Amino acid sequence: MKHYIQHDDWKIIENGFQQENNRISESLFSLGNGRMGQRANFEEQYSGDTLQGSYVAGVYYPDKTRVGWWKNGYPEYFAKVINAPSWIGIDVEVNGVPLDLNTWKVTDFKRVLDMKSGVLQRSFQVEKDGMKIAVKSSRFCSIVDDEVGAIAYTIKALNKDVQLKITPYIDADIVNEDSNYDEKFWEEVGQEHCGDTASLTAKTKKLDFHVCTSMAFTIAVNGKTTEVENTPIQRTKYVGTESIIDCRVGTTLTVNKYASVVSSENYPKISLMESGKEQLNKAVAKGFEQLLKEQKEAWAQKWVNSDIKIKGDTAAQQGIRFNIFQMHQTYSGEDARLNIGPKGFTGEKYGGSTYWDTEAYCLPFYLSTADQSVARNLLVYRYKHLQKAIENAEKLGFTNGAALYPMVTMNGEECHNEWEITFEEIHRNGAIAFAIYDYIRYTDDAAYLSEYGLEVLMGIARFWAQRVNFSNAKQQYVMLGVTGPNEYENNVNNNWYTNTMACWCMNYAMEALAYVKENAPKRWAEIQAKTKFDEPTETSKWKDIIENMYFPKDEERQVFLQQDGFLDKELKPAAELGDAYPIHQNWSWDRILRSCYIKQADVLQGFYFLEDQFDMETLKRNFDFYEPMTVHESSLSPCVHSILAAKLGYKEKAYEMYLRTARLDLDDYNNDTKDGCHITSMGGTWMSVVKGFGGMRVRDGQVHFNPFIPDEWEGLSFKVNFRENLLNVEVNKSDVVIENLSEGCIDLFVFGEPCSIEGRSKERIELKKGVLMG
Amino acid sequence: MKHYIQHDDWKIIENGFQQENNRISESLFSLGNGRMGQRANFEEQYSGDTLQGSYVAGVYYPDKTRVGWWKNGYPEYFAKVINAPSWIGIDVEVNGVPLDLNTWKVTDFKRVLDMKSGVLQRSFQVEKDGMKIAVKSSRFCSIVDDEVGAIAYTIKALNKDVQLKITPYIDADIVNEDSNYDEKFWEEVGQEHCGDTASLTAKTKKLDFHVCTSMAFTIAVNGKTTEVENTPIQRTKYVGTESIIDCRVGTTLTVNKYASVVSSENYPKISLMESGKEQLNKAVAKGFEQLLKEQKEAWAQKWVNSDIKIKGDTAAQQGIRFNIFQMHQTYSGEDARLNIGPKGFTGEKYGGSTYWDTEAYCLPFYLSTADQSVARNLLVYRYKHLQKAIENAEKLGFTNGAALYPMVTMNGEECHNEWEITFEEIHRNGAIAFAIYDYIRYTDDAAYLSEYGLEVLMGIARFWAQRVNFSNAKQQYVMLGVTGPNEYENNVNNNWYTNTMACWCMNYAMEALAYVKENAPKRWAEIQAKTKFDEPTETSKWKDIIENMYFPKDEERQVFLQQDGFLDKELKPAAELGDAYPIHQNWSWDRILRSCYIKQADVLQGFYFLEDQFDMETLKRNFDFYEPMTVHESSLSPCVHSILAAKLGYKEKAYEMYLRTARLDLDDYNNDTKDGCHITSMGGTWMSVVKGFGGMRVRDGQVHFNPFIPDEWEGLSFKVNFRENLLNVEVNKSDVVIENLSEGCIDLFVFGEPCSIEGRSKERIELKKGVLMG
Repeated sequence: MKHYIQHDDWKIIENGFQQENNRISESLFSLGNGRMGQRANFEEQYSGDTLQGSYVAGVYYPDKTRVGWWKNGYPEYFAKVINAPSWIGIDVEVNGVPLDLNTWKVTDFKRVLDMKSGVLQRSFQVEKDGMKIAVKSSRFCSIVDDEVGAIAYTIKALNKDVQLKITPYIDADIVNEDSNYDEKFWEEVGQEHCGDTASLTAKTKKLDFHVCTSMAFTIAVNGKTTEVENTPIQRTKYVGTESIIDCRVGTTLTVNKYASVVSSENYPKISLMESGKEQLNKAVAKGFEQLLKEQKEAWAQKWVNSDIKIKGDTAAQQGIRFNIFQMHQTYSGEDARLNIGPKGFTGEKYGGSTYWDTEAYCLPFYLSTADQSVARNLLVYRYKHLQKAIENAEKLGFTNGAALYPMVTMNGEECHNEWEITFEEIHRNGAIAFAIYDYIRYTDDAAYLSEYGLEVLMGIARFWAQRVNFSNAKQQYVMLGVTGPNEYENNVNNNWYTNTMACWCMNYAMEALAYVKENAPKRWAEIQAKTKFDEPTETSKWKDIIENMYFPKDEERQVFLQQDGFLDKELKPAAELGDAYPIHQNWSWDRILRSCYIKQADVLQGFYFLEDQFDMETLKRNFDFYEPMTVHESSLSPCVHSILAAKLGYKEKAYEMYLRTARLDLDDYNNDTKDGCHITSMGGTWMSVVKGFGGMRVRDGQVHFNPFIPDEWEGLSFKVNFRENLLNVEVNKSDVVIENLSEGCIDLFVFGEPCSIEGRSKERIELKKGVLMG
Repeated sequence: MKHYIQHDDWKIIENGFQQENNRISESLFSLGNGRMGQRANFEEQYSGDTLQGSYVAGVYYPDKTRVGWWKNGYPEYFAKVINAPSWIGIDVEVNGVPLDLNTWKVTDFKRVLDMKSGVLQRSFQVEKDGMKIAVKSSRFCSIVDDEVGAIAYTIKALNKDVQLKITPYIDADIVNEDSNYDEKFWEEVGQEHCGDTASLTAKTKKLDFHVCTSMAFTIAVNGKTTEVENTPIQRTKYVGTESIIDCRVGTTLTVNKYASVVSSENYPKISLMESGKEQLNKAVAKGFEQLLKEQKEAWAQKWVNSDIKIKGDTAAQQGIRFNIFQMHQTYSGEDARLNIGPKGFTGEKYGGSTYWDTEAYCLPFYLSTADQSVARNLLVYRYKHLQKAIENAEKLGFTNGAALYPMVTMNGEECHNEWEITFEEIHRNGAIAFAIYDYIRYTDDAAYLSEYGLEVLMGIARFWAQRVNFSNAKQQYVMLGVTGPNEYENNVNNNWYTNTMACWCMNYAMEALAYVKENAPKRWAEIQAKTKFDEPTETSKWKDIIENMYFPKDEERQVFLQQDGFLDKELKPAAELGDAYPIHQNWSWDRILRSCYIKQADVLQGFYFLEDQFDMETLKRNFDFYEPMTVHESSLSPCVHSILAAKLGYKEKAYEMYLRTARLDLDDYNNDTKDGCHITSMGGTWMSVVKGFGGMRVRDGQVHFNPFIPDEWEGLSFKVNFRENLLNVEVNKSDVVIENLSEGCIDLFVFGEPCSIEGRSKERIELKKGVLMG
């Protein structure tokens, strides 16, 4: 863990240059606008340790699958998020000496990410060879014009007159850190340089994505824009403009750099550079101050409905805002082709853009804080990939329209290539089905079933029905060779969670089928014809499996067993691990697999999704058994545990888990923030507040709250959309105030008691302490 | 399966150009001499389907490990056998038209590998644009001068005068088929061209192996050597010599090409080209005929003691000779740094040179047919790697001198990087320990224990003692998360074979320890100090584990269970697979893992190694249970089953399995001969004859035979060295004749009866039919 980030309600602050933590800071201070983004790399050159990263949504590289032993069904490629041409570069030389924070003496360094406005600022003084200068920079990716970025970069000569050489540039001669022997993924298509404006189009190898990056800049001396003679610098994959300026002591020189990044995902290739210049020119015409003003206004608007306020605990407040901020930076819900990549625009690790994280951890955030269409689009995304999921299952030997959604994808095809994940971590199908249920439960949009949902559910149910086999030894159905959510177990038999979700899916598919049959008989006839559904043979089989499924259980402890054979392990609490934590960085894989340690909720994930199936005592027994063995080394772990702990009244555990999820990256809990931030788990952080501390649930079409706040807090407030109503929920030490911000009345439940709130009014309810949720 | 190879006692013959099988033929007709070798690629250019492959022993490339999710303990590199600069190339143009069997009309094509002499011959006629020519080539890698190769390439104009352009060359601008986007592994160091002699030195990327390939040639017209004007052709990574010759109809033109291949493994880099030229000049001085004569004599010598003769079954005879021939081509036992690569010099698939195959399948061949020092060298190879095996175990978290030998290695370091193999297929340690026992049992060289063996055994025993854990649920020791010899199961618990071998190893280590203590107390003191062995704490622990180990068993069927949970699978005979065979080419990995199908002997491998621990009834029950579910998709499978079937008196099964192992490559049983031959399993083929049909065993220092021959055969004879004696064993339908070819008398057992054979004399014993081995 690291604690160098300064606590602040609205800002992320690095005070003093933490060179050894630079990669972590580059991740934490990342900027993005759903369309493009980049790590907090410096504008000027830096020869110290850095992970350079600029990313363009939807652009990737199909890295060839290479394994010791090829397995049938592997994708040919692994979709790698690639470092794209950088638009931020401004090289600076002072009297011929390159400005480089690795070689100059740095003082008064401060890096600030203002989450209220989405602006990254940096200021420092540097000294070398008797020269002393001060630098300030402000940078943002506009969320108003989402193909535009802007920088204001200011240099002041502090102790003597100096000659400055300033070179804003675009660089496409870049690598990914994990490429094979520095293989490069970009080739130049063309470049243009005209006055202060320069453009460079590059394309990716293999998939031929084109990206045009354009830049323009102005130079001002003491705030006054000045024409400076300049020299174009052009070479392969690089275009820049060099200006030499004499700068007297005390003088401030400001470079305003504007850039546009456009890709062939959104414009014809043939005129891509024109499109890029058009976007650039619009930005230049607005100017830095106007762009910044719009940026601030737009961010303020984003915060209105999605902000969560925590009183009395700055660390917790900063944590939750950081999570919400990153969710907004990563996905705006405006482009149905995009999804929520695990690292967003903060790093290159992990391939693909879509994991089960979206359905399991992000959907609730969008359901409650955005228009219903955003969550629906996330579901439709999977509907559009149904045919590919069916083909994916066929590659693995399944038939009859069985669908297996990919573990990782860009376009519906599987793009992960480790067998224990790709072929075995099939529980993902369950989360995708559950998201349909979750969405309809929340929105009451049951029409979604006939339009899209049922087909997806049928494909998934068919998959499960084929994936089980009947064990003669047990005289029950078993599911062999799976990997559960706890990826610290591979190729296990009868993972309780997977068996449970499989049965749930088949059951829900039957319910959905009955619903569509009754409410949209014509549509059902279409679907039946399309899917060649054989009723009642198929549904009878599903029923038979549900009735005769085997679920591993420890009769002595009365807990469900994560999988067959779990009790042969040495069962030891994770608290005893000491220095070994995180084990995925310190232990070999076989040792992890043999151990009892749990990466993230597995049995407990089932309790989270299907909570109404289990009573509180059963939850308690299982939580008490599994949580102590859980190392939470997946970013997706603490949030679910926080919610369950809150439900059980384990306030301290809930708070501990909340801090861990909310400050996972800020405090570098898992020693991997340097690779990028854990974006998808940030939706989980939001859930841990709203579902955990807020105790929000939707049951039978009505919303329930069972709030409490940790002892460390004075107050908590959050807003949620629920169907027609926008609610503000405010919790303090003694009561909860729910304000209905909409016109219509809403009936809801607080601490299990019905409560009706008129439009534009609020209700205050006394906090019930020590009451467990039922 | 394919049946285009013509049956012959001594030759491998392709009659008529089987273009669609060219890759298979290139594998089958490969040449090698333990130091270098190559696939049967054509001398002249070929634009059809081909896998080009020349290989130099000990030279490899560390291909960077790239996986989706890095696991601690992975090697950084995977040692890839690389295609080396080719010395065989002779391009031919006829009246300006390149000779190419893919574009010319081919007739009378014949490719013959003469196993008696180790010479590859090819003859054909081709026609194009009215030109008709005949070509013959003979080629060999000398086993006398093992850095030398020679070719005689003859062209005859059949129907008109033609102008020939002949270009012998060396080409280092080559790729491996599975390289990433045609990455090249070789860089040129230098080249030289001087008259008819040319040399080219290339080095590998990363590891900087240098290889110098040199060539010289002569041209003869109608058998008379002729000076022909020539032009050097030099470009990067290529050097050749072009000669233009007018060739009258009926005239025969012969190119004798000589080459040397020397590497920095054996010579200083600084003078490598000098060394190469020296070797080349010696070869040129001898001339083609003399080199060929020496080659024939040397091969005749190899066959004297290692030949196996089968009467009445040409397919079987050809099969066994092919296996023995390839074993000799791959490993000569002369260089203690080398080992027996799984593809020898016949293909690039699989990395590394050393697998457990060496100990489990090849050692017996060398024990019986070569000088004792050859087998001993194979054991010493592992002793020399002990420190690296200890370090390897440390990387995985083991301590106190525990040793885990690599699954695949070039130099003692693990170079395979799939977790289920590298970290889990730990039974390899068992085979390495067993080889020590096997060697001493055969040779009586118990002194090996104190010199080398004991330290290896202790390291291995220490590993097992740490790898198990005590299960509170079972109140026994268990071994979780392993992969057994049947690699169609991964990460299973309590693989019976692994648990069994682990106990055996700990027990044998204790025996060895007691032996050394008693017989070499001083050496024991040294070892104890070096290994910090804590007696009796460590041995007590070993004893406790041996006494309380858990072995999975099916009480109903009274068979050992391959692993926990095996009975939850659908148990179906492999015979029902039909078109699905081979499943590793047709099924996804998860489907294979979930199925009952067994890749190679697993429980039965234990019965093979430790046969004296189990009675015949137990063997029969287990064989009858497992063999029908075995798909034999590992080349190492049929031989063990053949030996066990022979023991059980299942003659037909023994014969079926023998044919499958002996003709695995010749008949392309597993549809993968195109990738290269299965070299290490060829030792297993030898065992299936000698241990299977010959029923040879060593017990209590004496050799036993229990021979029979399959109904299809008229006779079988083989030779074995046993300690002081060389024996020739001849079996026919009615009796067995054992001839003692040495001076001293030998006491042995035939059909369980003692039998004494004087020096230089023989005994004839009537065949006992239907008698099972006890």
